[in-house]
Amino acid sequence: MRICPRISVCTVLVIVCGCCLSIPHLLAAEGKVMKYARFQVGKTIAYGVIEGDKITQIEGDLFGTWKKTATTHDLKSVRLLVPTQPTQVIAMAGNYKSHIKNSPVPEKFLIPQAFFKSPSCLVPDGADVIIPPGTKEVHYEAELVIVIGKLAKNVPEGKALDYVFGVTCGNDISARDWQKSDVQWWRAKGSDTFGPCGPVIVSGVNYDDLQVQMRLNGKVVQDQSSKDLIHGVAKTVSFLSQHITLHPGDLIYSGTPADTAAIKPGDLMEVDIAGVGVLKNKVAAAK
Amino acid sequence: MRICPRISVCTVLVIVCGCCLSIPHLLAAEGKVMKYARFQVGKTIAYGVIEGDKITQIEGDLFGTWKKTATTHDLKSVRLLVPTQPTQVIAMAGNYKSHIKNSPVPEKFLIPQAFFKSPSCLVPDGADVIIPPGTKEVHYEAELVIVIGKLAKNVPEGKALDYVFGVTCGNDISARDWQKSDVQWWRAKGSDTFGPCGPVIVSGVNYDDLQVQMRLNGKVVQDQSSKDLIHGVAKTVSFLSQHITLHPGDLIYSGTPADTAAIKPGDLMEVDIAGVGVLKNKVAAAK
Repeated sequence: MRICPRISVCTVLVIVCGCCLSIPHLLAAEGKVMKYARFQVGKTIAYGVIEGDKITQIEGDLFGTWKKTATTHDLKSVRLLVPTQPTQVIAMAGNYKSHIKNSPVPEKFLIPQAFFKSPSCLVPDGADVIIPPGTKEVHYEAELVIVIGKLAKNVPEGKALDYVFGVTCGNDISARDWQKSDVQWWRAKGSDTFGPCGPVIVSGVNYDDLQVQMRLNGKVVQDQSSKDLIHGVAKTVSFLSQHITLHPGDLIYSGTPADTAAIKPGDLMEVDIAGVGVLKNKVAAAK
Repeated sequence: MRICPRISVCTVLVIVCGCCLSIPHLLAAEGKVMKYARFQVGKTIAYGVIEGDKITQIEGDLFGTWKKTATTHDLKSVRLLVPTQPTQVIAMAGNYKSHIKNSPVPEKFLIPQAFFKSPSCLVPDGADVIIPPGTKEVHYEAELVIVIGKLAKNVPEGKALDYVFGVTCGNDISARDWQKSDVQWWRAKGSDTFGPCGPVIVSGVNYDDLQVQMRLNGKVVQDQSSKDLIHGVAKTVSFLSQHITLHPGDLIYSGTPADTAAIKPGDLMEVDIAGVGVLKNKVAAAK
């Protein structure tokens, strides 16, 4: 069990406010699994805590201090949104041994290789992924997505998990032809709707051994554990924070396992991460 | 003179509120040059309109409707911040003929070539650019930066300037060794402090003929007009909006002219864009 360096502060908070649950890494250390979602009901947009088939609205800052309100909804009656409003979306390239054909890790990938997606590409569970005009080869990529919980800069690997709020499911949609033809991957990876993410954030699970599966029209096409990441969650967060300041709510797509394949309008993609959730998105043509 | 498609709405606004100046493209059409800045004084962070050596605080949404308040400061007494809080920072690669050695435009660059920097790299006028550990070759890049004023998606080139709020100065700091060695340019272009931007936003000038100059320790090392952009402001905004939704306040670094060179701790960089402003940043070593 990791000991929270802010344990005295945390203890005070717990004494002051018994329902304050703003310390997911502490709950994780206690083995308590928590599920959170950002949702809309009517004109209200809020964060909530999920218990069973109910979601209880919170007040305060999910990444700071907050408490439950008396407002609870049936989970089915609310619209789940992209789980955070990140200042940046980062993604990892070639981060599973299987994605680089299980050959020895090339020198380039001995350090984490990142790129930026953009918040503008994010879409929630249930939204369509639109194939834009001009690309002929768009692929799915099932990924574990890391949700940053605290401002992180120059964080050592041994403390990096303290900066992770939780994880969610992501689909790093990729236009392979643009990835090859363009100077950089901005539209290959960042076109509108190319960032399905959600439906919920889960903390308190072992991020380094989660089974990540993609089902395309019901058939399993990717299926691998996050323990096969070349650079795991802590290493990834630590390395990124050496170069860029990470902010609460920032999202890191951790890389995709094994082979990917093309999608077409009408396809149903399901990113299923054991213990985390299922992210479902259909593919549609541009209008 | 371009005619604003919202002319009737604009007229109503002007009648209702004579001091409402929220329509920079209309003011631009009238040839009125406006200067805006985001600033901090004490604990207050606000936008202001600059007239002479004074800045007048506004209330409302700079990109929506707003009006001047009675609060005016000496420009020298406030701290100018990065001019916007963008949802995304986009930059253009190889967008001046001189940057690609004045040879015929290669096929790849016949379409605009973009990449993402990240909001986390932005620093204001006067802030240090820090050379991070691990890179041995960091270059300046003086650039005209486009500030988006309205939500833009699938905007035709002929209407793209209606979506431009104004322009400011930018310095697209680039670690050339990481640019070569990494899979993508995330840290080569996006490391903390690699995005100097400001000091003010100017609207009502001809964005397609602004002289962009870099002075390194007082010596002119880049000096070219934005009329030599391969893809000008309207084309760039239109093309990007075909792929990603642009939001008010988003920043687009439009590319850098001619050759660039390495910087070292102690150097002073000045991006001087005629009629727009001078962006000054010193170079420092990491601590």
